[in-house]
Amino acid sequence: MKAIIQTDTSDPSSLSWQDTQTPTPAADEALVRVHYAGVNRADTLQAQGHYPPPSGTTDIMGLEIAGVVEDPNGCTWPDGRPVEAGERVAALLSGGGYAQYSVVPQGQLLPLPDGYDLREAASVVEVACTVWSNIMMTAHVDEGDTVLVHGGAGGIGLFAVQTAKALGARVAVTAGSAEKLETCRGYGADILVNYREQDFAEVMKDAGGADVILDIIGAKYLAGNVASLAPDGHVVIIGMQGGVKGELNIGALLAKRGSVSATGLRYRDRADKARIVAATVENVWPMLADGRVRHHIDRTVPVSDVAEAHRALLAGEVTGKIVLEVE
Amino acid sequence: MKAIIQTDTSDPSSLSWQDTQTPTPAADEALVRVHYAGVNRADTLQAQGHYPPPSGTTDIMGLEIAGVVEDPNGCTWPDGRPVEAGERVAALLSGGGYAQYSVVPQGQLLPLPDGYDLREAASVVEVACTVWSNIMMTAHVDEGDTVLVHGGAGGIGLFAVQTAKALGARVAVTAGSAEKLETCRGYGADILVNYREQDFAEVMKDAGGADVILDIIGAKYLAGNVASLAPDGHVVIIGMQGGVKGELNIGALLAKRGSVSATGLRYRDRADKARIVAATVENVWPMLADGRVRHHIDRTVPVSDVAEAHRALLAGEVTGKIVLEVE
Repeated sequence: MKAIIQTDTSDPSSLSWQDTQTPTPAADEALVRVHYAGVNRADTLQAQGHYPPPSGTTDIMGLEIAGVVEDPNGCTWPDGRPVEAGERVAALLSGGGYAQYSVVPQGQLLPLPDGYDLREAASVVEVACTVWSNIMMTAHVDEGDTVLVHGGAGGIGLFAVQTAKALGARVAVTAGSAEKLETCRGYGADILVNYREQDFAEVMKDAGGADVILDIIGAKYLAGNVASLAPDGHVVIIGMQGGVKGELNIGALLAKRGSVSATGLRYRDRADKARIVAATVENVWPMLADGRVRHHIDRTVPVSDVAEAHRALLAGEVTGKIVLEVE
Repeated sequence: MKAIIQTDTSDPSSLSWQDTQTPTPAADEALVRVHYAGVNRADTLQAQGHYPPPSGTTDIMGLEIAGVVEDPNGCTWPDGRPVEAGERVAALLSGGGYAQYSVVPQGQLLPLPDGYDLREAASVVEVACTVWSNIMMTAHVDEGDTVLVHGGAGGIGLFAVQTAKALGARVAVTAGSAEKLETCRGYGADILVNYREQDFAEVMKDAGGADVILDIIGAKYLAGNVASLAPDGHVVIIGMQGGVKGELNIGALLAKRGSVSATGLRYRDRADKARIVAATVENVWPMLADGRVRHHIDRTVPVSDVAEAHRALLAGEVTGKIVLEVE
C-alpha cells in the first residue's frame, strides 16, 4: 500500500506518499480501506518529534479515518453483530490513518453518524471522543451548569460549545478576536471573552463561576482557571499551549472544593478507548444526526498535500478540520 | 446554657465555660442536648483565627456531637420517620458543638452506630464523613485499587486506612516513625513509608502507583503525589500542613491522566452535607458496627479542660480523638 512516510525525522515537512507494508490485523482488529483521514494538531506534534505513538503502534501518523471494511477478521460490534466486509465505518486510531489501509481494534470502530458521508465522518471522530470523554465522562456537565471553553473558536472549542449547549449548559468562551467570538456566538456561546482585552477570571467571577472548564492552555491559565471555578468546579486540561509547569494555589482550590484533571486520548488502553467510543456513539452521534452539533470542515485536500495541511493548521489559518482524501 | 466562649480572639487558649444564649432551632433544625463533643484540628485553627465559621453559623467551636434530642421541631429522618424527643443522636455541625445545646439541620442528624455509646459516637462523625466523602464520593476507591494515605497514624489516617481496606484496596501509608508505622500496620496498612528516611514517590512508583492519594500536606507533597499516581489516579487534598502554593507539573499529570482535588466539609451547603451524612451512615456505620473499622479515642476530658485538649492535639501528643464530656 501507499502511506505518508516522514523521510527525515528532523524535518516535519518531509512527508511523502510512498510505498510501505500493508498492515496485518491481529486478533480483535479489522483491516479498513481508508477513504478519508482527519488531520489533528497531534499529528503535527508527532511530525515534530514531540508526540511519539504508544508502543506497539505504527509510526505512520493519523488518528482518525473513515472507509470501508476490507477484512473484518472476526470482529464484532458492541451489540454482538459481526462486522462485515464492505461496511462503511469510521475509526479512532492510535496512529496509522495517513495510509491506504489501517488496522482498527474492534472497540474503536464506529458507524457513520446518520446523514454523514465518509469525508465528514473521518474528521469528526477525534474531536467528538475528546469532547465527550472530557466534558461528560471526566467532568460530568449537568443541565444548568456553566461551562467555560478556552479556544472556543478552534475545532475542539466549537464542538465543545455545541455539545455543552446540547446538554443544557450555559457556555462561556475565550478567543482572541471579535470575529472568532462572533463565530462562537453563532454556535451557541452565551458569554464571550476576548482574552486580549479582558481578564477571563474576572468575567467568570461576575458570571457566578464555571462548573466545568475545558482548557487547552495549561500552565499560563492555571491560576485564572482556579479563580474562575464555581464551588465544586472542575478544570479539565487537554492541551499545554501555554506551558507545562504552573503554580497551583491549593488554598484557592480548596476554597472552591475544586478539581484539576489533565487527560488525553491517545495513550489510553483499548478497553478505555472502547468505553469512550461507545459512549460517544450513544450520546454524540444523535446530536450530529439532528444538527444540535454541527461539524465544520475547513477544507479537503489530497493526502499527498499533507505537509501543506500541517503548515496551514500550525499557522492558525484553519477554522474547523482539514480532511485528507486518500481513496 | 453554658458553652465554651473564646474571651480573647488573640489568645487561642482563652477558652472559658460560661453562660450564653441557648440557640433556637429554625425550620428543619432540631435542638439537641449535648452529652459529648469531639475535638478536631479545625477547632484549634478556629481558635487561632484561621478558620472562620461559615456565615450564619455560631462563633462557638465544635463540629460534632452526640446527645439527646431536646426539641425535634418537626424534623424527620431521611426515611420520613419523625425525629423524637429523647432520641439518642449524633450530629455533624458547622459549629456550636462545645455547648450544652446545639441546633442541628435535620440532614445532619445521625443515628448512633450499632454498639456505639454517645461518647464514641460524638467523636466519629467528622472523621467518618471526611474519609467517606473523599475516598469514595470524590475519588471512588475500587476493590483492588492502591490507596496512599499520608499521615497514616493520625485520626483521619487510621480511619482512612481501615475504610480503604474494608473496600478491598491495598493501602500504603506515610508516617514519621517506625512506631507510628507499626500502628498503621496493626490497622491493616500494607505498604509502610517512613517519610524521614524514604522518598514516598519512589516507593509508590516501585509499587505500581497509587490510584487514590488522601493528602493532608498540600504544597510540599504536590510533586511527589503527582509522581506517585497510577494511570487515571486521583490526589485528594484535605489539608495544607505543608503549604498552600505548589508547582503543578501539568505534563506529568497529563501523562498519568491524573486529577488533583482539594476539598473540605465545613463550607458545603446543607443539601451536600445531608448527602454525605446519608452515604456515611449507609456505608461506614456497618463497618463500625462489625469492627471492620475501629474508632480510636485517646482520652475523654471535661469540656472545661478544652484549652489543654487543644494544646495536646497541636503538640502531637494525641493518637486518635479527644472527646469533651459536657453532660
